[in-house]
Amino acid sequence: MEADPTLRLRVFDLNCWAIRYLSKRRQERVRLIGDTLRREGFDLVLLQEVWSERDYSDLKAKLGGCYPFSHYFRSGVIGSGLCVFSKFPILDTLLYQYSLNGYPYMLQHGDWFCGKSVGLVIIKISGIIFNVYVTHLHAEYCREKDAYLPHRLVQAWELAQFIRHTSKAADVVLLGGDLNMHPEDVGIRLLRGWTGLRDAFAEATRFEGCEHGCTLVPNNCFTVKAELLPFPLGIRIDYILYKAISSFTVKCEELKTTTGTAPGMDIPFSDHEAVMATLHVQRQGQAVGACGLGAAELTLVDVVTEARTEVGVGLRAAQRQRYSAGRMAVLAALLLLLQAVAALGVLAGLAAGQPFPKLSFSLLAFLAVGVLLLSTGLHLFHTMEVKMLQGTEEQMRMALRVLQERLRDG
Amino acid sequence: MEADPTLRLRVFDLNCWAIRYLSKRRQERVRLIGDTLRREGFDLVLLQEVWSERDYSDLKAKLGGCYPFSHYFRSGVIGSGLCVFSKFPILDTLLYQYSLNGYPYMLQHGDWFCGKSVGLVIIKISGIIFNVYVTHLHAEYCREKDAYLPHRLVQAWELAQFIRHTSKAADVVLLGGDLNMHPEDVGIRLLRGWTGLRDAFAEATRFEGCEHGCTLVPNNCFTVKAELLPFPLGIRIDYILYKAISSFTVKCEELKTTTGTAPGMDIPFSDHEAVMATLHVQRQGQAVGACGLGAAELTLVDVVTEARTEVGVGLRAAQRQRYSAGRMAVLAALLLLLQAVAALGVLAGLAAGQPFPKLSFSLLAFLAVGVLLLSTGLHLFHTMEVKMLQGTEEQMRMALRVLQERLRDG
Repeated sequence: MEADPTLRLRVFDLNCWAIRYLSKRRQERVRLIGDTLRREGFDLVLLQEVWSERDYSDLKAKLGGCYPFSHYFRSGVIGSGLCVFSKFPILDTLLYQYSLNGYPYMLQHGDWFCGKSVGLVIIKISGIIFNVYVTHLHAEYCREKDAYLPHRLVQAWELAQFIRHTSKAADVVLLGGDLNMHPEDVGIRLLRGWTGLRDAFAEATRFEGCEHGCTLVPNNCFTVKAELLPFPLGIRIDYILYKAISSFTVKCEELKTTTGTAPGMDIPFSDHEAVMATLHVQRQGQAVGACGLGAAELTLVDVVTEARTEVGVGLRAAQRQRYSAGRMAVLAALLLLLQAVAALGVLAGLAAGQPFPKLSFSLLAFLAVGVLLLSTGLHLFHTMEVKMLQGTEEQMRMALRVLQERLRDG
Repeated sequence: MEADPTLRLRVFDLNCWAIRYLSKRRQERVRLIGDTLRREGFDLVLLQEVWSERDYSDLKAKLGGCYPFSHYFRSGVIGSGLCVFSKFPILDTLLYQYSLNGYPYMLQHGDWFCGKSVGLVIIKISGIIFNVYVTHLHAEYCREKDAYLPHRLVQAWELAQFIRHTSKAADVVLLGGDLNMHPEDVGIRLLRGWTGLRDAFAEATRFEGCEHGCTLVPNNCFTVKAELLPFPLGIRIDYILYKAISSFTVKCEELKTTTGTAPGMDIPFSDHEAVMATLHVQRQGQAVGACGLGAAELTLVDVVTEARTEVGVGLRAAQRQRYSAGRMAVLAALLLLLQAVAALGVLAGLAAGQPFPKLSFSLLAFLAVGVLLLSTGLHLFHTMEVKMLQGTEEQMRMALRVLQERLRDG
């Protein structure tokens, strides 16, 4: 069988940092992003942090001519922030919301309110089925003491599982997004190992952009310089990953990033750099291994074990928090009970003649009710967190069993 | 190609009604269920409402010899209640939690706390890949004025989408569970139409059990008789559905339900009847249409349109509730502001000499804070609800567009 002509696909990925009222020069930057996308005519555009549906509608109106197909994924209180623009028809979509995503009471971080998710759009180009995933994982606020690591690992695992289970009829899988993980982090190794996805930056024949492909760089006027102090060149947390299933091959011919400013402008698109990949997709004579695993299974066992240990650490922390919240709720309930007894005593005339401190008494009762409600809510929340961490740990255990059986049999 | 010998598969499905402290004679019934399952030796057992992980562990210990493979799906505060026991190895699992599932403040209904989900287990029997789904949708508390219909429709849609997207590499799809919908309800028609699943009861060559295959019957001593008054024979809300993909056929040889009591006993397994199907799976000479649609597309357009209308009704209700909660939050904030101004006035000595009602003032302030917190929480919750309903409506619109294009082209 002769090889078909190559399909050339240009993909654009960007965390747009378009938070209403909070992100600097948002409207100007969204306009700039729209103008560039229209001028450049990519095949596929994967955006994150488009939090305002208004911004999405503006982009959609501007890009309608060049990218007639688009989808915005709704979730959480604010929205998922994820959207896709495509030159080719979108046949179907699906959204998977991660089961863990930080804490609602960490208002200063706010990730919980975004309903972090992975969005899938299915696109057919020249008869080739593309499963295109766009996602944004929980942010890392402190690398030394990363309280969100277990949640981000659960997300990386769920992302990998979602991709594996939904991509079985796809010819090519593409994932773009802000994964909030450095290339060597356990979550990235887990995601890549468990799905067989390859990193466009590592595979690219030509590269042009920030050193080491960094996407959060000190050069960008919107980045917080203090956070990047340990990384003078910046960090790489935005990715385009891909793999071919069935009888196709994908190669990354070129990868580019912006370098602190938008091309030909004096301001950047966002506080993140854009990632742009040119992929070559070609039909092969014979089918390639479907699961993308193979010799890497031994490494994968180590990675899953490492991830499972981290999830275990998170599980124990969540169990401690659940216990503390439960104990606080019990104490508040006891205090209320005590107050009820005292009030009944006063009503029954036991303390007749003595002045009753109505004000302090009521304030204390209100405080106790407040603490009771809050700690009950926290207890319920941490109970859910414990369940999801346990569920992930068990899924990972099952994965390890299957991997070890394969190693034994193979 | 000659037809392979037939694979005979016996499937058991039951909503176990095993709520700790609330369900009557729970432990006795769970023991009874375990004994029966061990004696009967089904191939596959799909259970719902096993809320206590302790009950699951007990069942697992008892059934280990006969069903060496099992999985419990964890989610929500209480757990999903879903579990699977299998004679054949479980290769992989995935859990999808429905994005809408009632309201946390409807404590008397409690569905929200269960984290209603669909669980997928992948099983390989004689080289045939089975994607087995188990689920439990939101209960229907009042058929005449069903406030949860939009949520249940979103769940039915998400269930259908999840099955379609994850079953593309499967040879046979099986779904068992308590769908809380009557056979003619729009949600069931949507699920069946959009996935191509067939109803084991309707397809069965032989049937034995409650009339019309009902699974909630007045005959059962645990059912609430008043709720079944409009349905003297009972209702059918528990299903086994199936379809063959690729080059297989599935036929339902026999369907059975229990009839108000467990076989040979004087108490039932649960307030629901068990559904037991014997399926015949056979390899065919030629592949069957993959999507299971075809001539039914015109009907499907009507069903999706009907479902979309109901989701639209739910959307408008959610928007109203979001607005009311937001208005209440603003009023409470205004009251607090007013109080702050008054308190400042007193501190500044504007009302010197006049007695200041400290107690009522503090009580009012606490009340205002309480209302503010509560209504803000409600506002956030209904904002999420609106987003998910909008998202589903848009997905349905996209499905209609694709269907209509197919009808036009075909």
